[in-house]
Amino acid sequence: MEVTRTNFKDSLSTVYSAIEEADFLAIDGEFSGISDGPNVSALTNGLDTPEERYMKLKKHSMDFLLFQFGLCTFTYDQAESKYVIKTFNFYIFPKPFNRTSPDTKFICQSSSIDFLASQGFDFNKVFRHGIPYLNQEEEVQLREQYEERRSQSNGSGNPSYISPNSNKGPGSIPEEHREYIGRVVEKVESLFTTSEKTVDLEPCTGEKCTGVLCDDIMGFQKERYIQISKVDDEERKRRERQKQEREQEELNDAVGFSRVIHAISKSGKLVVGHNMLLDVMHTIHQFYCVLPEYLLYCFLRLLDTKLMATTQPFKELINITSLAELQKQLKESPFKSPKVVTAEGFPSYDTAQEQLHEAGYDAFITGLCFISMANYLGTFLTPPRAHIPSQSKLIQPFVNKDHVLYVTFPKEWKTSDLYQLFSAFGNIQVSWIDDTSAFVSLSQTDQVQIAMNTSRYAESYRIQTYAEYVQGRQQVRESQGHSTQSWDEDGWVKPHYTSPSTVGAGPTGYSYGHNRYTPFTL
Amino acid sequence: MEVTRTNFKDSLSTVYSAIEEADFLAIDGEFSGISDGPNVSALTNGLDTPEERYMKLKKHSMDFLLFQFGLCTFTYDQAESKYVIKTFNFYIFPKPFNRTSPDTKFICQSSSIDFLASQGFDFNKVFRHGIPYLNQEEEVQLREQYEERRSQSNGSGNPSYISPNSNKGPGSIPEEHREYIGRVVEKVESLFTTSEKTVDLEPCTGEKCTGVLCDDIMGFQKERYIQISKVDDEERKRRERQKQEREQEELNDAVGFSRVIHAISKSGKLVVGHNMLLDVMHTIHQFYCVLPEYLLYCFLRLLDTKLMATTQPFKELINITSLAELQKQLKESPFKSPKVVTAEGFPSYDTAQEQLHEAGYDAFITGLCFISMANYLGTFLTPPRAHIPSQSKLIQPFVNKDHVLYVTFPKEWKTSDLYQLFSAFGNIQVSWIDDTSAFVSLSQTDQVQIAMNTSRYAESYRIQTYAEYVQGRQQVRESQGHSTQSWDEDGWVKPHYTSPSTVGAGPTGYSYGHNRYTPFTL
Repeated sequence: MEVTRTNFKDSLSTVYSAIEEADFLAIDGEFSGISDGPNVSALTNGLDTPEERYMKLKKHSMDFLLFQFGLCTFTYDQAESKYVIKTFNFYIFPKPFNRTSPDTKFICQSSSIDFLASQGFDFNKVFRHGIPYLNQEEEVQLREQYEERRSQSNGSGNPSYISPNSNKGPGSIPEEHREYIGRVVEKVESLFTTSEKTVDLEPCTGEKCTGVLCDDIMGFQKERYIQISKVDDEERKRRERQKQEREQEELNDAVGFSRVIHAISKSGKLVVGHNMLLDVMHTIHQFYCVLPEYLLYCFLRLLDTKLMATTQPFKELINITSLAELQKQLKESPFKSPKVVTAEGFPSYDTAQEQLHEAGYDAFITGLCFISMANYLGTFLTPPRAHIPSQSKLIQPFVNKDHVLYVTFPKEWKTSDLYQLFSAFGNIQVSWIDDTSAFVSLSQTDQVQIAMNTSRYAESYRIQTYAEYVQGRQQVRESQGHSTQSWDEDGWVKPHYTSPSTVGAGPTGYSYGHNRYTPFTL
Repeated sequence: MEVTRTNFKDSLSTVYSAIEEADFLAIDGEFSGISDGPNVSALTNGLDTPEERYMKLKKHSMDFLLFQFGLCTFTYDQAESKYVIKTFNFYIFPKPFNRTSPDTKFICQSSSIDFLASQGFDFNKVFRHGIPYLNQEEEVQLREQYEERRSQSNGSGNPSYISPNSNKGPGSIPEEHREYIGRVVEKVESLFTTSEKTVDLEPCTGEKCTGVLCDDIMGFQKERYIQISKVDDEERKRRERQKQEREQEELNDAVGFSRVIHAISKSGKLVVGHNMLLDVMHTIHQFYCVLPEYLLYCFLRLLDTKLMATTQPFKELINITSLAELQKQLKESPFKSPKVVTAEGFPSYDTAQEQLHEAGYDAFITGLCFISMANYLGTFLTPPRAHIPSQSKLIQPFVNKDHVLYVTFPKEWKTSDLYQLFSAFGNIQVSWIDDTSAFVSLSQTDQVQIAMNTSRYAESYRIQTYAEYVQGRQQVRESQGHSTQSWDEDGWVKPHYTSPSTVGAGPTGYSYGHNRYTPFTL
């Protein structure tokens, strides 16, 4: 399914429920370039440590744009022994939201653009109809803008009905505007003596009114004029509510595609990608926040099929690990192609007709590769099993190692309280979920169990492993009968305001200029 | 006429003859962005001196891509008292030429891209079918690559017929390749004993052969193999000639759109643009060379219609000088819309149906504005004249002031000789045309006449003003009956090699790391 700015809002509930019902998700991104420094092979050679590779990519790859995001959701149908898939191709573009919104600049690399062009990539769709997005900092700024504007507008405080010429002597009106202003005053005053409820002023350029409800209106012929309405208190409140709702919707529109990423993050589902470091880094960078200095401890459960294919027992069986070659090899013995059908209403891909380098197709193929490898692991069991679910313990060794704890606490707690709590366990990283819960990532794996043990008798707070948290969420969901209601407006991690006061636990792997924003929860 | 990579070569002679026959040219460019620093209005406000504006644009605007170039040629038809126009829309993209060619990175600014998208700009056409280009330095590098490869290839020196196993013992062939190499030797040796003229080796990966003519051939099924041919000296030379011609054509293809700019530069025609500094800077930067430190002394005869409209006698008559507004005002009295028809075979624009921000259309409108203003100047003459040609003295005050001399000299001269010759006249800037001629730009206008006078009795060299040079070229062309032959392969200014020895005349307004390349001749 192709998702652009045009159908994004209408598709969102479909996307949310596809994520919610899935057993695992596969993702892939297409970018406007790879490297603005060393050439691509130097950036992606296999000799680097993960840390070195992360630093190289952070330095040389983050000014490119992720402009197509592919998501393929895989749901296992136990009765039919097959996977049902839903594929989404999101076109992404940072269309400026208004005059004060960030005017993003991004780099294009000719070789990458030329390569995508040769694959039939539709740049017009990206630039004309791409879905906008904001990272958390931009979202907070925009929210603040709205709040500031609201507090400045007529609506705040008591309405004051002041005739425009009562506090400004006619002497302060320039000669050339005197006639116009005279007509305005006459018109507005006529409101109080006639039964008319509104009066439209002549088109003009931005005079500010006080005292009555003013609406800046665009006429049929694109002329702008101010409409002044006689209203009672009830009506005024109703209109303000309407305006706030409209503003909230505008804000949601501006956050745009980031809402999909928030939903993926919050779902706790296994996310599968092929050679996915760059995809994950771009996703965090564009839709969450500036990347941290050190290799990120990722809150997503990530599995890289390229990494999996180069690990035992696959290493011996698979020669070339490019996505296309991997898929070919996984069709042959000892592997088996999985049984997969496209969900009704979704356009289906034909694997015989390669559409590589469309993000949605690549995500789909990546998911197929994962299933084939996962199911191969089942042949070692006694008795052998044909289907290995993505939650199986057999998969665990291939999932990125996370040392993430889910912590609940009283709503008075600030980031500094969390740093204090974990001060004995080395560096931590905090990602707020809401007022009373957060993810805390420990830099030292061996400290996880100790932290869990010490918390056992605590009363004010509670610690769960990430796995326990995900399991808990799943149980709640199942008891609700797979309701998709949980994915409405509040279904994602919100930026959390903490006081910019001191932070206890020394160097944290983060170097923010301020600590007001959640680093990220991906 | 739309020109892309697909029809560029076939259109080139049409473009050349349109430039050649024109009275003046109008140009316009579309870019992937305006400013990577201060916002656009800060960059383009009218308060800066030209030097300040140049420095700002140089610093903040040159990493964007000029990806559409509009050219509209205007030819006056005396008999019919009307202009005949030819409009070209060139789509430009730095498609990498081969694996070693520059992989250009350029910035996109979301607001600019969004604006062009809203105007229906076709990005797919740019990225899929854009014409490549090289600046002079890249052209020289590519030429050197070809020469190096040629001197390394079999063709150079005497062919040496050596059997592959005569200078390498079989011991140096790895075990796993021995069988394959054996078959190769057998096949090649069979060439000398049979009547066959060629032998195709089995597909392999890059073995280097000595002794016979080897061709790297791509088979029907995309398998690559080496073909070995038995040839006599005659045949070998013929094939080398063919190869050189092919390489020259490849080189021309790579220089691509820059050839059009070279032709405009060489033509000496008046070039009209609207608010054209950025267009000119991008043109020099992409198709010539790194921009100099100081405001460029431009070798083109440039006229900016925005500047013209804000100069007497137009200043009093014209309020708003944006292109669209200017055009509207120039339709009304005291101005007159010029009589213009589109040349046969060219798609015509309808000025009623605005297509602003397509480069070709903007160039067209700019030309119309110029003609209206030029003809208005004719109303001051006694008797008044309805048509003022672009070469008229009445236009001179609006053309950028150039202090450019055309110098011819013996072919032994180097850049240092020119610096020595002009050492008495302040800073100069040299742009080579060929082995025996160059443009020399004097920084001090008042020195031009003195330089001319001192050269009068010189025998080894000759100096003409730029105007004399242009006039001379025109006379030659007319005597040839407007032949378009003069615009073939040699019709543009070539990079000129001078020894990297000392340069006499001190600071020159140029800060090149080397002086091997012509700064530019635009």
